[in-house]
Amino acid sequence: MSFDVLLLGTGAAVPERGRHPSCQVIHIGDHWFLLDCGEGAQERLNIAGVPKSKIDHIFISHLHGDHFFGLIGLLTTFMLSGREKALHLYAPEGLQAIVDIQLKYGGASLSYPIHYHVLDTSRHNCIYQDSFVEIHTLPLLHRIPCAGFLFREKPKPLNIRKEKIEEYQLTITQIKQAKLGLDITLDDGQVVPFQALTLAPIPPRAYAYCSDTAYHPPLVSLIKGVDLLFHEATFAEDMIDHAAKTGHSTARQAAEIARQAGVKTLLIGHFSPRYPDEAILAKEAASVFPNTLAGKEGQWYAV
Amino acid sequence: MSFDVLLLGTGAAVPERGRHPSCQVIHIGDHWFLLDCGEGAQERLNIAGVPKSKIDHIFISHLHGDHFFGLIGLLTTFMLSGREKALHLYAPEGLQAIVDIQLKYGGASLSYPIHYHVLDTSRHNCIYQDSFVEIHTLPLLHRIPCAGFLFREKPKPLNIRKEKIEEYQLTITQIKQAKLGLDITLDDGQVVPFQALTLAPIPPRAYAYCSDTAYHPPLVSLIKGVDLLFHEATFAEDMIDHAAKTGHSTARQAAEIARQAGVKTLLIGHFSPRYPDEAILAKEAASVFPNTLAGKEGQWYAV
Repeated sequence: MSFDVLLLGTGAAVPERGRHPSCQVIHIGDHWFLLDCGEGAQERLNIAGVPKSKIDHIFISHLHGDHFFGLIGLLTTFMLSGREKALHLYAPEGLQAIVDIQLKYGGASLSYPIHYHVLDTSRHNCIYQDSFVEIHTLPLLHRIPCAGFLFREKPKPLNIRKEKIEEYQLTITQIKQAKLGLDITLDDGQVVPFQALTLAPIPPRAYAYCSDTAYHPPLVSLIKGVDLLFHEATFAEDMIDHAAKTGHSTARQAAEIARQAGVKTLLIGHFSPRYPDEAILAKEAASVFPNTLAGKEGQWYAV
Repeated sequence: MSFDVLLLGTGAAVPERGRHPSCQVIHIGDHWFLLDCGEGAQERLNIAGVPKSKIDHIFISHLHGDHFFGLIGLLTTFMLSGREKALHLYAPEGLQAIVDIQLKYGGASLSYPIHYHVLDTSRHNCIYQDSFVEIHTLPLLHRIPCAGFLFREKPKPLNIRKEKIEEYQLTITQIKQAKLGLDITLDDGQVVPFQALTLAPIPPRAYAYCSDTAYHPPLVSLIKGVDLLFHEATFAEDMIDHAAKTGHSTARQAAEIARQAGVKTLLIGHFSPRYPDEAILAKEAASVFPNTLAGKEGQWYAV
């Protein structure tokens, strides 16, 4: 199953240096989830060839403009394209009021329903699940309520070892039981442990998105061992005081979180325009956590 | 004195075909006025090299998103760049509430004051003037309250004919009187008509911006003889019913207004994405009003 992340914006608050505000696409199975939606997101979705009509869930980490000013334009475009199916919006308190007032003065009535899910950014909650993915909030430390998002595949069932079906003459019911991790009792009373009948599945993959946050060690236990961690790295270490003051992280701090959490790969972004070349930030992070990538707009990353 | 118009967006509601939503810059003398501010305007101002910090007056024709969704991002960027001087915003009722609620949930307090000027879109009012320009609203016919804007240079004083100063030994007071169009009485009682002492100034130039409007003949008397008319031409004539229904014009209707008003040049824009090539719209307009230009993004037009 596909599980990939597309970066559409790697800039911080002010769109400069050719970087755009925050927006990511998570393509997992049939789903196209949107994470944050900075100004101009719809144009960059077009350029990247993302099928906008397949986006049914949009997650906004917080209500600083560089994370949501592009949302109202996208909602309007959905309307103008005749969308009818429901859209789910996940955001801290306030988004509905912001959308509603703009629709009101624009004399617009959407052609589709929006379901608003107000996030409790102080808690690590499951906010979405289906048969193959679960999404949890990640409490972040920023100037206003702010949540990251953890995408984790649902554990897959055990795989039956085909040769064992014949060996033990397993029934379909017995196969299902074994795949659920239950031992099997044969007709002759013999108990066969499920481990003898099955192979472990591919471990569930996980992606953590930490949009805007100061250095925040409580994150570590929540993102332990994820395959891919996006962690903001707005500044370099010489700006550590300014980072703390503005609720942001340095590249080294992002790497510290990645190292402590034992993630597989660290992807950094949300670069301040004071760094024309993000290589300096990637180098700083890599000195602590070697497997660091500097995010590039328009690039897909496999989880 | 410079008096030029920069088109930054020639598209209609949905940003497609490489076109962007409405935004224009009027550079007149020392002023950089902004007309409408669709999504992504700040990025296109950057690309065009417009000095954003010199923008002190922004005019929003109406509260459909393609005319103002880029404003909040620009206001935020002004704040982040430490702007302190006042900004004047002219728009129909509602803009302040829209801005305020986004600042509120973003926990932001602007570093500069905004003066809101609520437009009466039903009237042809003077909303701004200084020593060299006057700006009037133009009532438009759209689905929600909507105003165009007429920029007209202030009449310049008559030019004194230098050779007459010596001939009549004119005093400074007499020169000033003549330039104001007053006849001069010399010491010997002789009256010299001001026409004999002065040359006519360059006639004041005028630019009319008609953003979104159905065919609206009452405009004609208000924009009579302007040097440059921007008139929307969302559709071609085969869509005339749809144009009327949505409060838009066809290219032929835009040209009809230009012809009746006797303008010098017609500039069309706000092209529907159904026209990949706007040449078809320009050709239709030119059949009625030959001096028609199809607006190009990033291009300056002298008034």
